[in-house]
Amino acid sequence: MAVRGAVRAALDDLPDGSSVLAGVSGGADSLALAAALAWVAQRQNLRAGAVCVDHGLQAGSAQVAAAAAEVCRGLGLDPVEVVPVEVAGDSREGPEAAARRVRYQALAASADRHGAAAVLLGHTRDDQAEQVLLGLVRGSGVRSLAGIPPRRGQVRRPLLQITREQTEASCAELDLTPWRDPHNDDDAFTRVRVRRALRDLESDLGPGIRDALARTAEQVRADADLLDKQADDAARHLGAPPWSVGKLTAYPDPIRTRLWRRLLIAAGAPAGQVSSRHTDECDRLVTAWHGQGPIHVPGGLLVRSTGEVVRVERYGVN
Amino acid sequence: MAVRGAVRAALDDLPDGSSVLAGVSGGADSLALAAALAWVAQRQNLRAGAVCVDHGLQAGSAQVAAAAAEVCRGLGLDPVEVVPVEVAGDSREGPEAAARRVRYQALAASADRHGAAAVLLGHTRDDQAEQVLLGLVRGSGVRSLAGIPPRRGQVRRPLLQITREQTEASCAELDLTPWRDPHNDDDAFTRVRVRRALRDLESDLGPGIRDALARTAEQVRADADLLDKQADDAARHLGAPPWSVGKLTAYPDPIRTRLWRRLLIAAGAPAGQVSSRHTDECDRLVTAWHGQGPIHVPGGLLVRSTGEVVRVERYGVN
Repeated sequence: MAVRGAVRAALDDLPDGSSVLAGVSGGADSLALAAALAWVAQRQNLRAGAVCVDHGLQAGSAQVAAAAAEVCRGLGLDPVEVVPVEVAGDSREGPEAAARRVRYQALAASADRHGAAAVLLGHTRDDQAEQVLLGLVRGSGVRSLAGIPPRRGQVRRPLLQITREQTEASCAELDLTPWRDPHNDDDAFTRVRVRRALRDLESDLGPGIRDALARTAEQVRADADLLDKQADDAARHLGAPPWSVGKLTAYPDPIRTRLWRRLLIAAGAPAGQVSSRHTDECDRLVTAWHGQGPIHVPGGLLVRSTGEVVRVERYGVN
Repeated sequence: MAVRGAVRAALDDLPDGSSVLAGVSGGADSLALAAALAWVAQRQNLRAGAVCVDHGLQAGSAQVAAAAAEVCRGLGLDPVEVVPVEVAGDSREGPEAAARRVRYQALAASADRHGAAAVLLGHTRDDQAEQVLLGLVRGSGVRSLAGIPPRRGQVRRPLLQITREQTEASCAELDLTPWRDPHNDDDAFTRVRVRRALRDLESDLGPGIRDALARTAEQVRADADLLDKQADDAARHLGAPPWSVGKLTAYPDPIRTRLWRRLLIAAGAPAGQVSSRHTDECDRLVTAWHGQGPIHVPGGLLVRSTGEVVRVERYGVN
């Protein structure tokens, strides 16, 4: 079964006796993941458990989480826990982003409590395609096109090459009844609209688009990773300000745009607040110098060029 | 007017007295382009003409081309010529690709005849968005995401930042009546289906997607250009076969995948026939060596690893 094979491959590197948790919502993707994890863990001598996060956002969510936990116990997973969380979105993030943030915090805390080496999540190739399309629509840069990473920190996503159809088939085969999230039909969620857009694309342009999007994501991710690494090297090489204009302009554009972000953050700008507007303006200090004034950058920084070097000052400090 | 500004910027670098041709179909994009070229040429001391290619694929195409030429003459362009071509698609290319190939050949020949320094084409930001979406759908690699280049050889596309709406407004303002290609409603053409898919995406996900796609294309193109250049450097550095496995594996994946393509072509494989299947198989000779046999590559090449070096042989030659 493809799901089992994917889970086995994703856990190949873990030493005997390692502990692994699956994040389980009760939907087809995570149920199939949980079942495959139970199967693989037995054969690879791993300890496998599950965490069912109850977001408390829908009536009956506690029952859904409890039912998912019950299925996980039936699959032989242990420990299995339900973690209720409170999703209080701050003003700058939408409800989806807030739920995601809280969910990942809960999963990380659970992994810590149980000494888990890895937390598995059930994102599929369909999620990947949706994510790439979403990145495209937002136009938020090449990195957003790179989609969902197969691994980041403790989190592993073994099913990124598996389709939703396959996880549903896997559940049917194992006689598991997935929970169907009513939010999946609620147009208020961007994710739901992206899913419909993908269906429209398929009917306009034929099947295969999910595969194509996922394949593109892989290539874009590999390219972006390499250019990010080259920018990291460049940032290390340039070190603390002042920075030589000649050295900065010697880097090709795609490196320099990435480099500015790193330089500004290293100089004290908060990572979450540095936008392409700031890096573009700083870049023009070196690529289109005509005596312009200093650039204000979040974190109280002033980036100023002399035409020869670029200096960073703090507001009110001489 | 935005169209004039875009054309002026695209011709900025041409010396006084240079000759420029616009490719004109009679549609809104190319008519707006022709009008702007006439206006700019007068003020920048350029000689400006037009070429109307008659593909002969629709009844009345000769009249459409003649009418477009008449409009161009009315705009003061000179020379203006109608070039009839014959589109005979070979078995491996579709009708759209064949028409495109023949059109570009005709434009290049016309530019040669008239000693033109540049040939302008009226592709807009909408064409760019469609091209990026098409590349995504085909999953044919990062490069296909890079969209339509603003310049390649003699060809320049000044309107890639201009919308179709703007070219239509420009025609209306100048009292030019664009020809409406009935093929634009014919579902047999991939381009038409992509256009509809974009409209669907806009209605699902809101406007702004054309901008986002075009912006992404710019970033992806810059990234891909840099990685291509790094692969060019690597190919020069490696030179003729045999190639050291150690040197090959020292390159990061995104460079090595690009590098293989260059190495195989330099060794005699026809550029149009080297696919990712060939480069992937060659790559496994160095990244996943387990004594596998030689790889057959188009052009009668056999690529063979010893585990230490990779050699290229020709079939039947020892």
